[in-house]
Amino acid sequence: MKFCSHCGSAVVSKVPDGDKLPRFVCTGCGMIHYRNPLLVLGCVPEWEGRILLCRRAIEPRLGYWTVPAGFMEIGETMQHAAQRECLEEALADVDIGSLLAVVSVTHAAQVHVMFRAKMLRPGFGAGDETLEAGLYAQGEIPWPELAFPSVEFALRRYFADRAAGREDHHFIELARPFVK
Amino acid sequence: MKFCSHCGSAVVSKVPDGDKLPRFVCTGCGMIHYRNPLLVLGCVPEWEGRILLCRRAIEPRLGYWTVPAGFMEIGETMQHAAQRECLEEALADVDIGSLLAVVSVTHAAQVHVMFRAKMLRPGFGAGDETLEAGLYAQGEIPWPELAFPSVEFALRRYFADRAAGREDHHFIELARPFVK
Repeated sequence: MKFCSHCGSAVVSKVPDGDKLPRFVCTGCGMIHYRNPLLVLGCVPEWEGRILLCRRAIEPRLGYWTVPAGFMEIGETMQHAAQRECLEEALADVDIGSLLAVVSVTHAAQVHVMFRAKMLRPGFGAGDETLEAGLYAQGEIPWPELAFPSVEFALRRYFADRAAGREDHHFIELARPFVK
Repeated sequence: MKFCSHCGSAVVSKVPDGDKLPRFVCTGCGMIHYRNPLLVLGCVPEWEGRILLCRRAIEPRLGYWTVPAGFMEIGETMQHAAQRECLEEALADVDIGSLLAVVSVTHAAQVHVMFRAKMLRPGFGAGDETLEAGLYAQGEIPWPELAFPSVEFALRRYFADRAAGREDHHFIELARPFVK
């Protein structure tokens, strides 16, 4: 951020009076521009025991596999966002179920929230941001080719809980970028 | 938003190619400026059965009561944010416990996430954004004087679960502004 989105003047980074963290503050109108973590919503869609995965057609991690997920939009709930992303990325209709994982991706200033989901019918396909989509049994998941650690975390907890007949939710902080 | 924070040119609101929603797009450099929901983190702090509440010293809802809560910062987890807000607003040290409530406040473009918490010692006080703080038994909660519907939702679920010996989590969408 270099310019004030309100008046167009230059901004500087400084700690405002009464605050503890540096913020972008406008040198013209004085407006303080806060930056806060963003929510990424996704789901683990299941059809007859298999999981719907998408191969990414966009950066970051183009060509790697993920569950359907993306940035939550203003005006929707977390569940709506997870359902919409699944429709957009994998052309699949799902019922969103229980909360599966909340991953604080601190290095990226994101919180990834994943739900369990049931596909309403077997149809799926590749949306604009997807190269291909496919249904994978637990033993077929391309673990080394997953796009993000939050996806691996969600899938491993999903299978562990399913095997145990539970639907718990799991918190984790994944602070480091994915290096491969 | 009137100006591009990257180059200082004017922005217009339009639906970018391949998108479905209007965004602020820069007329100079073409950058798309997304706006997404923000996370507000809070907790219900308990000490010997009573709940720690704060009377707000700032707008909105100045003078009304809330549990400690505020915007999540970059670099922290949801639990860290809830713990920090309790320390800043009520000068109280807490252990953050289980997930209590996830409230989609769609009209405000916020998601409020509330955890259960245990105060580590009986000390508390009024932080900079608080007029006064106090411990309230269930029968003493000032229900008509609560600041936000998400606070009422979290407290009512907290007491119901506590009476039932459960620690569930609860989702709700509260789409309308609070009118009093």
